[in-house]
Formats: sequence, structure tokens, C-alpha cells
Amino acid sequence: MKLEPTLEANRLFAPDPAQRRVARELYDAVAGLPIVSPHGHVDPRLLADPDATFGTPTDLFIIPDHYILRMLYSQGIPLEALGVPVRNGNSAGPATQTDHRRVWQLFADNLFLFRATPSGLWLADELRGVFGIAQPLTSDNAAAVYDELSAKLARPEFRPRALFERFGIETLCTTDDAADPLVGHGAIRASGWSGDVRPTFRPDGVVDLLAPGWRDRFDALSEATGREITRTATFLAALEERRSFFVTMGAVAADHGVESAYTASLDEVEADAILARALRGEATLEDARQFSGHILIELARMSVEDGLVMQLHVGSLRNHNRTLFERFGADMGADIPVAAEFTRNLQPLLDRFGNDSRLRLIVFTLDETAYARELAPLAGHYPALRLGPPWWFNDSLNGMARYFDQVMETAGLHNTVGFNDDTRAFCSIPVRHDVWRRTSANWLAGMVIRGIVEESEASIMAHEMAYGLAKRAYRLDGGDTAVDRLS
Amino acid sequence: MKLEPTLEANRLFAPDPAQRRVARELYDAVAGLPIVSPHGHVDPRLLADPDATFGTPTDLFIIPDHYILRMLYSQGIPLEALGVPVRNGNSAGPATQTDHRRVWQLFADNLFLFRATPSGLWLADELRGVFGIAQPLTSDNAAAVYDELSAKLARPEFRPRALFERFGIETLCTTDDAADPLVGHGAIRASGWSGDVRPTFRPDGVVDLLAPGWRDRFDALSEATGREITRTATFLAALEERRSFFVTMGAVAADHGVESAYTASLDEVEADAILARALRGEATLEDARQFSGHILIELARMSVEDGLVMQLHVGSLRNHNRTLFERFGADMGADIPVAAEFTRNLQPLLDRFGNDSRLRLIVFTLDETAYARELAPLAGHYPALRLGPPWWFNDSLNGMARYFDQVMETAGLHNTVGFNDDTRAFCSIPVRHDVWRRTSANWLAGMVIRGIVEESEASIMAHEMAYGLAKRAYRLDGGDTAVDRLS
Amino acid sequence: MKLEPTLEANRLFAPDPAQRRVARELYDAVAGLPIVSPHGHVDPRLLADPDATFGTPTDLFIIPDHYILRMLYSQGIPLEALGVPVRNGNSAGPATQTDHRRVWQLFADNLFLFRATPSGLWLADELRGVFGIAQPLTSDNAAAVYDELSAKLARPEFRPRALFERFGIETLCTTDDAADPLVGHGAIRASGWSGDVRPTFRPDGVVDLLAPGWRDRFDALSEATGREITRTATFLAALEERRSFFVTMGAVAADHGVESAYTASLDEVEADAILARALRGEATLEDARQFSGHILIELARMSVEDGLVMQLHVGSLRNHNRTLFERFGADMGADIPVAAEFTRNLQPLLDRFGNDSRLRLIVFTLDETAYARELAPLAGHYPALRLGPPWWFNDSLNGMARYFDQVMETAGLHNTVGFNDDTRAFCSIPVRHDVWRRTSANWLAGMVIRGIVEESEASIMAHEMAYGLAKRAYRLDGGDTAVDRLS
Repeated sequence: MKLEPTLEANRLFAPDPAQRRVARELYDAVAGLPIVSPHGHVDPRLLADPDATFGTPTDLFIIPDHYILRMLYSQGIPLEALGVPVRNGNSAGPATQTDHRRVWQLFADNLFLFRATPSGLWLADELRGVFGIAQPLTSDNAAAVYDELSAKLARPEFRPRALFERFGIETLCTTDDAADPLVGHGAIRASGWSGDVRPTFRPDGVVDLLAPGWRDRFDALSEATGREITRTATFLAALEERRSFFVTMGAVAADHGVESAYTASLDEVEADAILARALRGEATLEDARQFSGHILIELARMSVEDGLVMQLHVGSLRNHNRTLFERFGADMGADIPVAAEFTRNLQPLLDRFGNDSRLRLIVFTLDETAYARELAPLAGHYPALRLGPPWWFNDSLNGMARYFDQVMETAGLHNTVGFNDDTRAFCSIPVRHDVWRRTSANWLAGMVIRGIVEESEASIMAHEMAYGLAKRAYRLDGGDTAVDRLS
Repeated sequence: MKLEPTLEANRLFAPDPAQRRVARELYDAVAGLPIVSPHGHVDPRLLADPDATFGTPTDLFIIPDHYILRMLYSQGIPLEALGVPVRNGNSAGPATQTDHRRVWQLFADNLFLFRATPSGLWLADELRGVFGIAQPLTSDNAAAVYDELSAKLARPEFRPRALFERFGIETLCTTDDAADPLVGHGAIRASGWSGDVRPTFRPDGVVDLLAPGWRDRFDALSEATGREITRTATFLAALEERRSFFVTMGAVAADHGVESAYTASLDEVEADAILARALRGEATLEDARQFSGHILIELARMSVEDGLVMQLHVGSLRNHNRTLFERFGADMGADIPVAAEFTRNLQPLLDRFGNDSRLRLIVFTLDETAYARELAPLAGHYPALRLGPPWWFNDSLNGMARYFDQVMETAGLHNTVGFNDDTRAFCSIPVRHDVWRRTSANWLAGMVIRGIVEESEASIMAHEMAYGLAKRAYRLDGGDTAVDRLS
Repeated sequence: MKLEPTLEANRLFAPDPAQRRVARELYDAVAGLPIVSPHGHVDPRLLADPDATFGTPTDLFIIPDHYILRMLYSQGIPLEALGVPVRNGNSAGPATQTDHRRVWQLFADNLFLFRATPSGLWLADELRGVFGIAQPLTSDNAAAVYDELSAKLARPEFRPRALFERFGIETLCTTDDAADPLVGHGAIRASGWSGDVRPTFRPDGVVDLLAPGWRDRFDALSEATGREITRTATFLAALEERRSFFVTMGAVAADHGVESAYTASLDEVEADAILARALRGEATLEDARQFSGHILIELARMSVEDGLVMQLHVGSLRNHNRTLFERFGADMGADIPVAAEFTRNLQPLLDRFGNDSRLRLIVFTLDETAYARELAPLAGHYPALRLGPPWWFNDSLNGMARYFDQVMETAGLHNTVGFNDDTRAFCSIPVRHDVWRRTSANWLAGMVIRGIVEESEASIMAHEMAYGLAKRAYRLDGGDTAVDRLS
């Protein structure tokens, strides 16, 4: 979609008038392209039920958005005051604010904290571009805006499926646990609705032996596959079985979130011994590291076999704030990046499958120092490897500029994969893609002005960045997809 | 102060005329704001005696400035030729040049080495803006400039207190050893002079068990508190006692310089055993690391209790050049940064106090790779944490631009603390703040032009960056200050 | 040389018209300066024989260029299809394409992969500026361009010596194995041709105990010096002897490529024990690390004694793709950088020789995070240390901009050494220097516009960057050269 009412035409472009003119032309040609969203965290149930709604403005914009929560929390605002429910058994302490109008007012009162942040930009664009709120949100108009949003959210044209269509989403991939029965996805497919929504196989909960709740998820995997899993071979077979199910449900990709990109094959005896320790609740940090490193190589093998694109998200230390985690659970804005190494860590995996074009490995990093030093050279060499777009904290105007600067010269555009919005905030999807498209156009325009690429080349590149690269990288172009291989 | 005679109006601004116009407006509104200097290394004795002077131009600009010394030394100019005295017992070797006019000439002859460096910029601005020297310093006019400077330095209006007032310094914090009797600070307070000069508690000399001269400083702490210190509990009590004294002398902050941000609590027995080894001169590198990590958490606890803002300067490997250190001592331009890790290292401290707004922890890094990866996410989450401005080598035009680029989107402006000049060169204070104010204005103007913030918002942000953030971050705003808590 | 036909006058300059005007003036004054190329990989035999030619366009532009190969390979094009010969004994598998015209067509068909890459830029400039091909290469004109290139390459004015002269190369240094008899260099010197071509002493093959082919090279060194080498002292004497020979052949520099900058002196017994293990084929990774660290300090000592400039290229993990290495050998675009540490690693070496101006140590990094954090502070302090230009993947428009941004303020221009083209692609020499000269001019212009340097200063700096710094850094200025010291 092109966001309406029209944002400033030159929004996010560099100041130079000549560059702006070119950027504007490049952008205008791609602004309305369909959205391919191959990686994100939208709840498929939103789209499974044609009558699903987003709830209150606070339900939509604040409570589930860890970008918003963390910034307000960092300035001393308790999560309870923001309407965030505490976990079961944590009823002691301040009560959670249930008056969503008051939460919204508190948010508006502190909106200045988001100046110059991506969240501030996205919010402004959503309110204006998606919801047609004419004035910027302020303390003074917070109540009126709340009412206007509430009224709109109650209308059919603001239900998730209607917005999906209005946003021009061509494909939306969700992220789902290995044992997930994909009920929502089943309902979407059964409903006859035309929206292309696909699950993504994410087995982190069972691969990371020290993840909170590992045993529960492991048992769920066991149950979902009807297997008693005590040996690695059985574990791998269970994963393969689930992947097949995901493929039949439309999945084109798997996703793996790891603190480190370490890969190394274990022999079967070692792997089984580690799994046995884990099942006894005795796995060590080093056990978890070795097991993850071993399973990643096996998951790469599975991707070679079943064609699921392998995404690797590296370098987030989850739940850094233990007090907060115990009270509220995960995804409260307390996941903090750590340095990441790829050259040595990925070598064992690449040694096995790096030269095999059947593997499509897309790597994401929170450690930008790896862009120019490791990831661009690796992606610029191995046929199996692609480099994912700026992720999480780096999904921002400056993060994109750094990515273009540090990656493109060495990796080459065609070893990148376009954009991921990676969001659980459904209404932010078009504004996030719009930032990418504007930023891409601006970057390309800078090169046109410097005589590095011709405007005709830049125009092709802008289209690729907005649409083509993502489509092909995730094998959504009707070519050699995962489900084709099954048949 | 606004520097006079007026520098080029658009100095340091990006080339685009539209951006320049906005930058200029933003800058003009903050250029004359009072200077809050909450961290630096000015010798309080300069301000204790109303008749104190700066000595010769060489005393002022060259001998104490390790930025100047290192660059000249790097091109083969011996420190002796620059007038730097050798330490006691090092009389062998070349004699120190005592003719300051000759040192000045040598400096002027080599001034080309400082082209495009912060030192070159500061020097030019000081000569012109503070001392009214009309022409740039050259080999040819070096003697005449020396004479003009000498004459001015002899005049009352160029004494430290007069310049303090002319510079519009609202608050100046010094940095002082834990055992320092703060005689200079006492004299300032006793003198009835209106200048607001405050000490800062910096116990590095006793916390780092392997610091040169550790035993002497440890004994000085023992003496200053009248305690025989053989156990950690006594050591901590002695620190607490000294902090109380600093608070009564106006301190609002403590400061801690560490090679690594490692924190981890020891049990009392371990801590005491390490201290005992140190007192026997047997402490190992690992002992020093563990002790520092343990004491940092205790110092955070003290900050919670007494309200002193806790500054943490991480990542300088001191006295890298042993030959130079042995001959001339510390602070000769041979402190070299090392990589720094914060996510894992600070977790134990943050686990204890990160959610407690009574702690105000301001972190500084020489390793810019931590900006976007670790520090901005941490500061954008923990209520106790703020991120200090670009430090030392990064206190520069480009260093500031990188900081704005890599920090602000994720941390948010309000989790930063404005500017520190961090200088021992008193006359550079206004020019350093001027660079920050210009660079801030330019950064904000860039966002105005790109439609990211409104000009009205940018104007508020510019004021915060120049004045408000520092004032509040260091609890200088008359709110909940350290001395309030004592009473 | 100034490239002809004239490229766009403002190529690679920032968009702002005022900055462009200054950049253009600065560039125009240096564009035609002679080329000093103190480090590169041109084969001296090209220049030894006055009738040598470059072969086919494919021989010239594709087969030997690992930048080209890696990008095409990364998108699934087999090296065999690009005309790359397999190693002896690897005749199984697909045959190497021997029809160079077909390889050229394949290359042209995939030229879009090089958009916005340095290779794309260099190729375009070479075709137009060196070979006078009027139209950009496309699939459609590939055959015609091949013919035109072939015809030109057959003409005397496109022989290597003729181009050497047309390019205005004042000095060209090659890179040569420690045991190399320097036959090509001997022939050049004997021929009476005026071209100044010099060898560089690179003993990596014998210093890295785990380098592929170590034993063969070690034996070659033994043979070249007529020494049976079983002890470190003999090994060092052999290296010294070879260095003397290189000096007599015109060498001004040595070069050392290491994965890590680790330095540490061993005692003789340890060093000999490690060498003995290596000779038995039993050297460990740690042995190789310790031996390299020890020998680097000895090589620095030799540089102090014989005056050869010591270059240190740090941080490339060679032959990351084992499958490819086994099939095709080294230099296929599969060398991948790793993180590098300098502050602690270089301290032992600098402790010995860092204050000695007779040592000229030039450090290169593939890990840009060390620029601002470690290398600029080190180079801005130690008299012996200089910082080399952006290397390899960072030898690009953006890589240069990052280098100027992160290095210059702290190191100071005079602790840098101008440009290295570092190329084995002879015809890319002038275009690579042209990119540097344009980028330098643009950087300087940016500072002129911001009031940081005067235009007259920028003009001097541009000349230094294009010519003076390299000339003096490599002791090519007729001053205190290596060969002078021998006599």
C-alpha cells in the first residue's frame, strides 16, 4: 500500500535536492508494490477468525510491543502501569492497570521519549497513515485520539483481514513452535480466504537445552510426534516429521534463534549423553552449546533435504533482567545483544553444506561489527549463504544506512534478501516496509548522484530490494519451493 | 559563553544549505547557555586561589595536554623537547627543555600534525575565541603569539576565576582521589566566591589492586579514615566514610575507571583472602579482576544509599608504553583502549540494582562497537542506567556523529546525559562544549530536514543536550541530591 | 595518469554542490600525480619480458581476480565455468571451460551482480579509462567488447611495460616468497628499462608452521641459503641472509600476513622445541601461534637493523572453504576475516621497538572495529607505528570513508601512509588510485566546507595522501633507505 494520507514526499531522504529528486523517483516506483513479509511474529489467530479485532488502542499499540515497553520502563515507569499482566503466581506487588484509557494517557504523556526512535516514527506513521489520525498524538489530545482509534478499530475495515488486504500483503509468514498444531493456519486455509499466510518452523524451545520451559516443549514435541525421545536420532526424526507437517501447511522457512553461531558435529554417543543429561535436568552451559552446535548442522541437512529456507538469528541474550522475567515473563524489552562470531563458528556447517545451493541459509546479526568483517565476505562467497536485513534494534533509519554502507559493497545486493519486518505489531507492517523502501531509494539515489550506478540500474535495484529479493530468497517465486519437493 | 570573536557561523555544520539553516537556528538558541561540566580533571587549586594563573602559554597548552604530547611524540619528537619533566631518579638521558618559548616554537612548527584532529580544532578555537588571537598560529608568528598570550595570561581577566565566569560555567566537577583531603575545594567554599565547583569521588587507586602506587594510596585511605584496613568490610566502611565527606563537600558523583566492566559478588572470605594477598604484594591479575568486580557492586550499593551518581569509565589500558611510563609517569598519551563487553559483565550489578531508580549508573566506553550492540539496548531498558557521551578519543566531531547515529535510536535521548568535557585543560572547556552544541544542532537539523522530528521538538532536544540532560542526570537540578539524603 | 576518456568530473563526490566544487579542485590538482604503489601482487615476470602480454580478456579480467570469482561463485556459478583450472590430481568433476570467449559472455551476463561493488567500479573504469571501450559492458555487446579488447591487448601500447609508463607508475613493489630467487626482478634490472620495480620480502610461508606447503617452503629456504635449518637461530640467520639479498634487489619493505597480531618472545629452548615439532610434522595450533609471535618480534629487530619497512597484514583466515581449496588451491575468494586485537597483542613488540624510529611498522587490518579503538590511538602515540590504508574488502568507496572517519581524527594524517592498491590485477592500478584520490579529495572538501581545515591546508593534505605519504612511509624519498644502510 501507499500510506494515506500522504506523508511528506521527501520523508527520510538526504537533504541534497538532486539526491532527493532521484530518491523520490525511485521510491515512487516501488512504494505501492505488494508486501512480502517472510519473517515476523503476527499471531495467526488474528487472521484465522474473520471477525477478530485488535482490542483497545492500548491492546494494539502498547501492551504487546516490547519496543514501547522498554523505553517507558527505562525511565522508571512500571510495567504494571502500562497494563502488562504479571505471570501466574506473581499477584504480590502493584496491581496491573486495567483502565486502558489511563494507560494510553500515560503513554501520550511520555511520547517525547520516543523522539528520533524507530518506535516514534512507526507510531506516527501508523496513526496517520493507517488510522487517518490527522494530528500528532499529544498529552492534550490523547483522550480524543483514543476515542477515534477505538471507534475505527470497531469498524469492519479495521479488522485484521481487511487491513491485510488494504496493506497489500502478498505473503505473511508467522513464527511457530516446533510442536505447534498450527490450528490458526489450518483455520485460515480452511476458510477459503485468499490471504497467503504461512507458518515458520522454529524449534528453539527444544534445541536450546537451557531455555526456560525446555522440558515442557520437549514433552510437547514428543507428544506431537507420538515418539518417546531419549536419543538424538529420535529427536532429529521428530523434528523432520514436524518440518514435513509445516511444509504441508505452507511453510517455506525454518528459523533458529541462538546466542552464538557455534556449529560443530558431535558423534552420536556424545550427543546422546548430552540429551540424557538434559532429560535428567543436569545439562551444563557447555552441553547446551555443543548440542545446539550439533543440531544446527543437522537442521541445515534437513533444509537441504526438504527445501525449507534456514534462517539463523544470532546474538540475543534473552531475559537479561531476571527480576522482570520472573514477574512478567519473556519479551518485555530485556533481551540484550552480545558480540557474535561467524567466520569460525559457521565453518563446520559451511564445510558440510556451504557449497550446496539446495541450502539457503539466511543469517541475521545484532552485532553489526560482523557485517563488513565476516558476514559480507561469507555471503559474498558461499552459494548457500545470504545475509538477512538489519534486525531488531538495527531495523531503523540509521541501522539500514549502516547495513547498506557496510554490507553491500562486499556481499553484493544479490546476496541479501530484501526486508523483514519481523514484527508482532500487525499495523506496523506497512510503515516498516515504507521506511525500508524510502531508505533503499535514498541509498540508491546517493549512488546515482555519485556516478556509481546508473539511474536505470538503481531502478531495478529498488524493485529488487522492495520485492524481488525477498520473493526469491524465501523461494516464494513459484520456483523450487519446499512443498514441491515433498511431491 | 558564545565564543568571541565570532567563529564562522556555520562551522561544523553539514554542507546542505537547508540543513545549515535549521542547524544554525538550533545552535544559536543554545550557544549561550550556561555550561554544566559534571566530569573533568581541572585542578581545583586553580580556582582556590583568586590570584592563581596559568603560567606560560607552554604550561597552559602543551605540557599538561596528553592529546598534544602524544601526537608530537608519535612523529619522533622527544617529550623532553616539549618541556615535560622526567620523574625523580630519571635524570639520565636528554635534559628537559626549560625555555618555554622554544617549546612553543617547536609546537608551532609541527602544528600541521594536528590538521583535522580535535586538538587542532580546540586549539584554534581557544586561541581565537578565548584569547582573541586574530591570526592562526604558524611557525612565523609563533613568537609573537607567545608574547601576546603571555601578556594576556598576566592580566586579571585571564585568571582562572575570571575565565570561569566569562565561560558561563554553572557547575564544574573535578576528579579526586578517595583519600584526598579536598583542600582546594575547602578553600573555594571558604572563600565566598560564587563559583560552583564540586569534587568527585574516584577511588580507582585503591580499588585496582595492581594500579601503580596502590599500596601508597591504600595506606593514605587508611590514614584518612583512621582505620587499619585488613578486611574488605573495613575497606568498604572506609570508602563509605570518604564518600560522606565528599558529599559534605558538594560531590554529586563518584567515578570509576576500569579496564573491564566485569562485576561479580564474592563471598566475604574470598574477598578478604584477595585483599590479604594484595597487602602481601602477591595479588594476581585474576585477584585484581575479581576484587574490582566485587567492589563495583558494593560501590553501586553505596550509590543507592548515598545518592552519588555512579560513573563507570571502561576500557582504557593505562600506561601501554612502559619505557615512557618509567621515565615520565602517567598521562603522557600512552593509554590505549581495549575491547569492552557490557551485556554479560554488568549483569550481576544490574541484577542487584538495575531496576532501582535510586541508582544512577552512567557508563562510558572507548569501544564504540558496544554503542549499538550493548549499551544502547541496556540504557534503553534499565531504569538505573544512562549512557555517557563520547569519551576521550571519541570526543570529536566524528565521534559525536557516530554516537548520535549508533546510540540515539535505541537508547532514546533521555537515557543519555548530555556532554562531558572531561578535560584538564581549563581553557578548552567552552570550545569543547561549543563543538558538542554545534554537532548536536547539526544532528537534529538533519532529522528535521528528513521529517523525523519537528523543528519545535528539535529545539527542545537541543536545549536538553546542551544543558538539561546533564543537569538532571547528575542530580544538579535541586531535586534529590546526595547532600539532601544525608540530612 | 588521468584516466581517459574523462570520467564524469564529479564521480564519487558527495552531492552538495559547494563540497563538489572544492573536491573537484583538490582532485584536479592530484589526479595526474605519479603513482607510488608500495604494496601489491603484480607478477614481476609481466614486466621482465618487454614482449609479455596479458593474454585474453578473460585471462586479464576474470581468471586471476578473486574478487570477481567469489561474487560469481556466491551465486552458484562454478569456478570451472569461469575458466579456473583445477589443481593437479583433481581432474574428476566438471571440466574447466577453455573457451575464453564463452567465459567472457557468462561474466557479462552476470555483471549485474557487481552493481555498487568496488569490482564493478574498477571494471567499468578500466574498460573505459584504460581500454577506451565507449559503451558499458552488457550481455549484448559482450562479444564485440571481447574482440575489441583482444585486438587492443595485442598491440604494443597495451603491453605491460607500455601501460606501466602510461599509468605514470613511479614505483611498483611486488610481493615475493622468502626463498624466491627474484629472477623476474633481476631481468628487469638487467634490461636497462627505466621502470622502478622492487621486490618485497614476505616470509609467511616459512613463518606460519601450519601454512599449506610449509615444509616445501622451509626446505626451499634451506636450499636458497645453503643451511640446514634445525634451530631457530639458524632460521633467523637464513631470513636475515634473504633480506640482505632482497635489499640488494631494491626491496624497501618486508610484509607479514598473520591471522592474529600476537607477539611474544620465547626463550631459545622453547622456540627450538617448537621448530623441532614442526619439522616432525607435529606442530600444534598453539605452537604455530607462539612461533609466529616470537618470529614477528625478531623480524621487527631485523627491520631496525636493515631498514626494511615492516608491513603487518592482520586478520585473514585463509582458505575458509576447504572443498574449494582442495580443488582449486588458494586465492579463490574464500579468505574470510576474523576479529583482530592489537592493543595487547602488539605490546611485547612495541615494548622492544615501539619507541625506535628506525623501525617503521605499518599495520593493516580487516577488522575495522580496531581503527578507532586500537590502531588510531597506537599509531597516534608510538613513533615506530603507522597505519596502513583500507585493505582488501575495505578498499572501497565506503571503506575509505569509514577509514577517514574513524582513523584520522585520532591517528593524525601523518601517522597514515597514503594508499596501497594491493592488486594482482595490473590494469586496475590506476583506477584504484583514482578512487582513493577522488575519495580523499571528497573527504577533505567536506572538512573545508565545515570550517575544519582551510582549503590551502586541504590542498597540501590531498597531495600528501596521493603521493607524499606513501613515498616517505616506504622510505622511497631518497632518504634513509634500506640499501643505504647496507653500504
